[in-house]
Amino acid sequence: MYKVLVVSALSQELNIIKSEIKKLSLRNIKVSFLSTGMGNYNMILNLTRFLEKNYFDLVINIGVCGYKNDFSINRQKANSLFIQIGRIFNLSNSKELIIPQIINFGNIESIACSEKPVFDSLELSDEDFVDMESYGFEMVCNSFSISRILLKIPVDKVGSETNNFDFKKAEESLRNNINYKELFFEIHKYIDEHLKTGKGKYKIHDDIFDTYSQSFNFTFSQKEIFKKLYYRYISLVNSDFSVFYEANKNMDKKKFLKKLEKGLEKYLVR
Amino acid sequence: MYKVLVVSALSQELNIIKSEIKKLSLRNIKVSFLSTGMGNYNMILNLTRFLEKNYFDLVINIGVCGYKNDFSINRQKANSLFIQIGRIFNLSNSKELIIPQIINFGNIESIACSEKPVFDSLELSDEDFVDMESYGFEMVCNSFSISRILLKIPVDKVGSETNNFDFKKAEESLRNNINYKELFFEIHKYIDEHLKTGKGKYKIHDDIFDTYSQSFNFTFSQKEIFKKLYYRYISLVNSDFSVFYEANKNMDKKKFLKKLEKGLEKYLVR
Repeated sequence: MYKVLVVSALSQELNIIKSEIKKLSLRNIKVSFLSTGMGNYNMILNLTRFLEKNYFDLVINIGVCGYKNDFSINRQKANSLFIQIGRIFNLSNSKELIIPQIINFGNIESIACSEKPVFDSLELSDEDFVDMESYGFEMVCNSFSISRILLKIPVDKVGSETNNFDFKKAEESLRNNINYKELFFEIHKYIDEHLKTGKGKYKIHDDIFDTYSQSFNFTFSQKEIFKKLYYRYISLVNSDFSVFYEANKNMDKKKFLKKLEKGLEKYLVR
Repeated sequence: MYKVLVVSALSQELNIIKSEIKKLSLRNIKVSFLSTGMGNYNMILNLTRFLEKNYFDLVINIGVCGYKNDFSINRQKANSLFIQIGRIFNLSNSKELIIPQIINFGNIESIACSEKPVFDSLELSDEDFVDMESYGFEMVCNSFSISRILLKIPVDKVGSETNNFDFKKAEESLRNNINYKELFFEIHKYIDEHLKTGKGKYKIHDDIFDTYSQSFNFTFSQKEIFKKLYYRYISLVNSDFSVFYEANKNMDKKKFLKKLEKGLEKYLVR
């Protein structure tokens, strides 16, 4: 039996998700649920206390998030029913976390994380989405070395809807925007391919990493740097990584990594 | 044997404190030490993990802090070798925590808590001191219901010294500004009077609370509200509480609490 924990900030969010997951027939997976309270501080405190007392193979954070009012957001993003978080930018300490991806499920996006509700989209700088718990969630999972998935559903337009938060809309989105059957199909696949076989945890893009690594003959530490930059790229840039690779594959490997890092800087919040 | 934990953000801070405490001969107290890393996120994560695995009767947070460059600080504050924290205002989420006091050791003061170093004293609004871990420390201790003491040593002037942080000065202050022998004398007294006798944990101002409570015939919940306001008062206002009491003791008890709360509002950061 594999143990999966679903974490949300609010019990209202969790109840909806719980009722949807309870409808599924899951083979060899036991799902538990935890609501932590709002904000990174509560997320870190309560998730840590829970994980110290209970073992899980996989933790999923599902919740609603805000999105930018003005459409710097491209068409694909604007139509996102949900997003899979690949990068978090914390607005309080200006630090970035990159999340190792274990399933291919939704569009991988970057999100800003704030300690208080954001009412003005200018505070988000170049970020298109904002929530209040993703940073703490990722920090705790990283500390416990637990496989994790972060899914956010854009519900309130920052600047116009955050003030009058529509709980009914949020509930409906939590119920309908994520196909929970498909999500657990992906989780089953991950368990079969990685946890069962003991092939290691964070393997989802390993074939990609291997391909580029071999092409450049990266050292171990260069490969680790490349992984972070790769996830930053797919979170921030709305185009296929192979485009960047094809245009730069004849460069020296150090210069390639440098160019990738430099090129991403214009996407970073300052 | 009573178990006491000393917590600092940085191992450099902890090493100094440890070497001072090791010089003391402590009867029936075993002292442990933990450094958590900088910032509330690290404090919450690492202190929680440690407290889940180890039992302590008392936790002490000792560290350096910044202080305001322009002297809104009065003479007493300016000469403070160290301060005992009674109230924390978190700059990221604008929330306040009031700390139940268990010993009378230093001047009880209010501190701002920030997720990144503060270089401009304007960011502190009415607060005179700033650190980066007190909010997380208090949150965790409150969650575990552990008796705690927060001591901060003002070392760097915000706006002029934070940029070129003087580690040598910080180390000397940590060594010399706190009389560790006196601190543990107070801790021994607390253990004898409260922990040994099982009289309950947070008792330090109970005689004061009882006096005012009886005078006003407060209900249980009014007394709890009064406790918080009392600590807010002594953290924020530099005068004896009896002055306020004498001037307002003939008021109706609800009006008295209201006036106390209203009067404190002008001291609060907005």
